Amino acid sequence: MKKFKIAIVGATGAVGREMLRCVFQFNFPFESIKLLASARSAGKEIEFEGHKFVVEELTENSFEGVEVAFWSAGGSISEKYMKYAVEAGCVNIDNTSHFRMDPNVPLVVPEVNGEALVNHHGIISCPNCTTIMMCSALTRLNDEFDIERIVVSTYQAVSGAGVAGMEELYRQSQEVLDGKEPVAKTLPCAGDKKHFPIAFNCIPQVDKFDLSNGYSKEEIKMVNETKKIFNKDIEVNATCVRVPVLRGHSESIYIETKKPIDMDKVFELLGNSTGIDLCDDLANQVYPMPTSFIGDELTHVGRVRKDLYKDNALSLWITGDQLMKGAAYNSVDIGLKMIELGLLK
Amino acid sequence: MKKFKIAIVGATGAVGREMLRCVFQFNFPFESIKLLASARSAGKEIEFEGHKFVVEELTENSFEGVEVAFWSAGGSISEKYMKYAVEAGCVNIDNTSHFRMDPNVPLVVPEVNGEALVNHHGIISCPNCTTIMMCSALTRLNDEFDIERIVVSTYQAVSGAGVAGMEELYRQSQEVLDGKEPVAKTLPCAGDKKHFPIAFNCIPQVDKFDLSNGYSKEEIKMVNETKKIFNKDIEVNATCVRVPVLRGHSESIYIETKKPIDMDKVFELLGNSTGIDLCDDLANQVYPMPTSFIGDELTHVGRVRKDLYKDNALSLWITGDQLMKGAAYNSVDIGLKMIELGLLK
Repeated sequence: MKKFKIAIVGATGAVGREMLRCVFQFNFPFESIKLLASARSAGKEIEFEGHKFVVEELTENSFEGVEVAFWSAGGSISEKYMKYAVEAGCVNIDNTSHFRMDPNVPLVVPEVNGEALVNHHGIISCPNCTTIMMCSALTRLNDEFDIERIVVSTYQAVSGAGVAGMEELYRQSQEVLDGKEPVAKTLPCAGDKKHFPIAFNCIPQVDKFDLSNGYSKEEIKMVNETKKIFNKDIEVNATCVRVPVLRGHSESIYIETKKPIDMDKVFELLGNSTGIDLCDDLANQVYPMPTSFIGDELTHVGRVRKDLYKDNALSLWITGDQLMKGAAYNSVDIGLKMIELGLLK
Repeated sequence: MKKFKIAIVGATGAVGREMLRCVFQFNFPFESIKLLASARSAGKEIEFEGHKFVVEELTENSFEGVEVAFWSAGGSISEKYMKYAVEAGCVNIDNTSHFRMDPNVPLVVPEVNGEALVNHHGIISCPNCTTIMMCSALTRLNDEFDIERIVVSTYQAVSGAGVAGMEELYRQSQEVLDGKEPVAKTLPCAGDKKHFPIAFNCIPQVDKFDLSNGYSKEEIKMVNETKKIFNKDIEVNATCVRVPVLRGHSESIYIETKKPIDMDKVFELLGNSTGIDLCDDLANQVYPMPTSFIGDELTHVGRVRKDLYKDNALSLWITGDQLMKGAAYNSVDIGLKMIELGLLK
């Protein structure tokens, strides 16, 4: 099997670190790994599985000889540098939001729409974390019952705001426990004016707001990306909320379908889906929680139940490691799917 | 104005303490206050606003001469002792779930259905915390647009599990920060088999499950109580989740109405509703958070926005102090409403 010269862009960030781990854990066939980051991190040594890497500065010339690059250094970095990688003949799997809605860029959750990869032009986008998990959980149900409408409320971990968000949650929690006023520097999002403590709190803002319609960008991502991934007019109503959890995202999802729902079939489908861990046994209080499965690559699904009134409506509760299924794993899995489809040579 | 001989049953619990505070803060006209609790707490001294109270043991004979009693000592206590209070001529405002669905017992949120109080027979029920806040937020919208369906996901504080839940969150948080395994003794609910840590976690279980339909009792409370309070067939789909917050509940609410929604009217109604604090200015990142308004009696409403597809659908985000609007304040407010209506003499 061919081995590839790969790069990870944003290698020192929360997602970048998990990308390196996923390359090893899921046996992405590599000949060499180049870790790229800003000038500030250049020269830093990272040891992993007996290999020693030295972080290099990302420049226009970083991609000569690189065949596959995984990007997670922020949208502005992808915007500025990815064109050089494409010119150099590198295939780019981008975890930022920058290219997601570009009609020339496939937006892919491998188990949902892996076939969309055949139309790539050197860039593939990895969807937003909350969208990946939701689409992964719902794809088989959509195949069978034809989903028309989704109402989703998220319970998002601070890892979505990177290492800074994770450190902030721990620091603020200790401040509160010590009877001090918690200091907020990062959340709800880096680019907005005000910051609020997340410790022992919930913040109904993830990313900035679109004042024209009252939704946050994170909510609009779920709306638009879900339509693109499923390639149909599913109507999504989303409320995205940050909660004081380290890195496991949760979502309370309600769906309405065109066809009436058969619950036996629902459990059969969810119990036999790629990437899904059905975790639903109420008699024994078995349901997914965000702290239960840190570090794994699955979407965990539980609390599956029919609506009390409508025959075509269903609720479920999902969790997943935001850094893994919600970002790093899905990116590496896109690469693996491309190899399987003969799209990386 | 007449002053009443009152009692608080369960006076040493998290809600009972707030009931005493509300009696003073909202000027419930009392001649005397008797604090009742289990034998274990009898003899305990409680000082408040210059008054010194000695907790007495609840017995069958506790209600002689008592005119109004506020109950929050658990459903089994209400079941066992309230009949003696009724026989003694005492009017009872019960914060437990025991009598809520009894057709002879009004279930009241004063600003929603205060008029239902006229049909009382000595017992009035205070709804579940999540139901009170939701009905309070939605009542004016229901009057105007005729709500047909609600999809709600809750973010419930640990105070719903009483003092023990609150202590557990703080203790577990420190355990996690110290690198220890958090010990779970109370949550998700006292009567179930397993307990899970709530620190840095979300638990999609509040109260026990009804295995016949897959919903928790807390979710079914929201379904049934909402119908009874609004006295119409609103279809509620609820997902109740415990989050690591001390005492502020939050709810992500989606409604569908019979009539098309006029957003100007929505903001006018919410801005001029009894018991509602409209807190919605996205340009300045103003929205309610559960830590923002601890100790007050209002339901705080924000993130109000129309659905992107349906002209008759709307989303909003509400928070409220679970112990206040969600329990103690609503109970005392029922008493004040009864005085206003001439039902307490």
